[in-house]
This record gives sequence, C-alpha cells and structure tokens, in this order.
Amino acid sequence: MITKVHHVGVVVRAIDEALPFWRDTLGLKLHKLELIEEQGVKAALLSVGDSEVELLEPVVSDNGVARYLERKGEGLHHICFQSDDVERDLADMKAKGTEMIDQVTRVGIAGRICFLHPNAMDGALIELCQPLDDYAVQHPAGAPEAV
Amino acid sequence: MITKVHHVGVVVRAIDEALPFWRDTLGLKLHKLELIEEQGVKAALLSVGDSEVELLEPVVSDNGVARYLERKGEGLHHICFQSDDVERDLADMKAKGTEMIDQVTRVGIAGRICFLHPNAMDGALIELCQPLDDYAVQHPAGAPEAV
Repeated sequence: MITKVHHVGVVVRAIDEALPFWRDTLGLKLHKLELIEEQGVKAALLSVGDSEVELLEPVVSDNGVARYLERKGEGLHHICFQSDDVERDLADMKAKGTEMIDQVTRVGIAGRICFLHPNAMDGALIELCQPLDDYAVQHPAGAPEAV
Repeated sequence: MITKVHHVGVVVRAIDEALPFWRDTLGLKLHKLELIEEQGVKAALLSVGDSEVELLEPVVSDNGVARYLERKGEGLHHICFQSDDVERDLADMKAKGTEMIDQVTRVGIAGRICFLHPNAMDGALIELCQPLDDYAVQHPAGAPEAV
C-alpha cells in the first residue's frame, strides 16, 4: 500500500547552481548531498514537511538522468511513493500487467526501490520505495529471490 | 514558510483513461473530480498520505495545460508546496528577484495560489498554495490590494 509522497525528483544541470533557489529562496532544508558513483549522479536531498525534493545532476553521459537532461532539459523527473511493503506492491503491479523498468527491487537513495515504466502511467515516471530499516523488519534475510 | 508537498500535478490526455492506473493500480483514493470551466481543465484529485496527485486534462486548446500536452506530451507538470502564509512568501520571493507567472495570488483548486515561472527554478514549474480556510484567518477582509 502506498502511504505518502516520499520525494519528487528534479533533474538539474548543476546542483551548485540550483541549490540557491531550492534552499535559500524556497527555504527547504538541505539534509544530504552525495555523489552516488554507481548510479552516475550527484544528489541533493531537501526536506519539505514529511517529504523531500531530490535534485539529481548526472556526472556521466550514459545514464537515464543524463539522457533526460539532454532530451527534455531541466525539470520534474519522477515522483516516488513510499510503500509499506514494496515487494508485495511490485508483485501486485506485475500481476495487474503494469509495465516496470525494474522487475525486481534494488537499493537506491530512498531505500529498497523499483521504477515503473513511464508507459504505464501517462508519461509520468514513478518510483516506489520502502526505507531500508522498515524493509529489514519484513525481510530480515534480505530481498526475496528474484522469480 | 513552506510546510509540505500539497500536490503533484500530472497532465493527461484523458482523465477517464488515466484513472484506472492511478486509482486502481496504485490504489490512491479519488476524492474529487470536477470540471473547472474558467481554467479550461478537468481535474481529478487523488489522496496519497497528507498530499495529493492532481490529474489535469485540458478541455480547451489555448491554455497552459493544453500547450504543455501538445509540446511535451503527458507527464509530471508541476509541484505545489503548501505555505503557511502565501502572501508573505510571494512578497519574499518577489523581493529576492524570483520570476513569477502570477504577480498576485488568485483562487485555484488548492486554495489561494500563485505560480512561479519555470525560469526561476531549472525548468520545474512550482506552485505555492494556502488552503482557503487557513488563508481567511490571516486575511479576513480578503486578499490584500495588489501593489
């Protein structure tokens, strides 16, 4: 079950140039800034109530974020919904025939995650996530075997 | 001050065709479906935790939503942050030189609202809102005179 908007992902050309607007003009609190080498992005997480804005800057030229920036320019990239059981929700969606980018969950910035395919929902890119501490309670032995 | 993500706006070609995904597959609760003639849109509001997804379908061809659909196709359109004082936040942003679409607040689906210009923040369209009942406490005589 989806419980809330976990974050909204925004693709930017340069986090350094974007931060003054999001942090200083909008007044959102920056709580994490990191380079995620294996995903080829720099990410800045800013708190807004119980949710976050996730600024994403590509640091390589051959990943989804870089291609999005080249094709569409800066802007809203995805919405991430928090699930109380991401494995069950992924299984339910696949059973309903929903087109997925990720056929199995993986670890991302927001916890245990999977992306739906934009074809599934009118061109909007949607991510599901479950924070890792919550996930570990349901899956103490780690992720279930991929089927 | 911004207090939370009020909603994320998604432009769709036809709400009737989009609803099965958002309501039935994602399981979000539809709590309002309305035709807003003066804005030229049909809107569906779905609850997700303390926030909403707002599906927008243009019913005319000459407004921003229709032009967005024609130019970019379906997808994430804007993010709306709730403010605890939308007049003060608008004044602050203008004082900081932020480019605005709306120079004064107006009544929208989410309450008393204003849109920032996408130039202001890296191509992402941002709306500020304050629910009308909350706004009325601070402005019992209505909106302040436009300056």
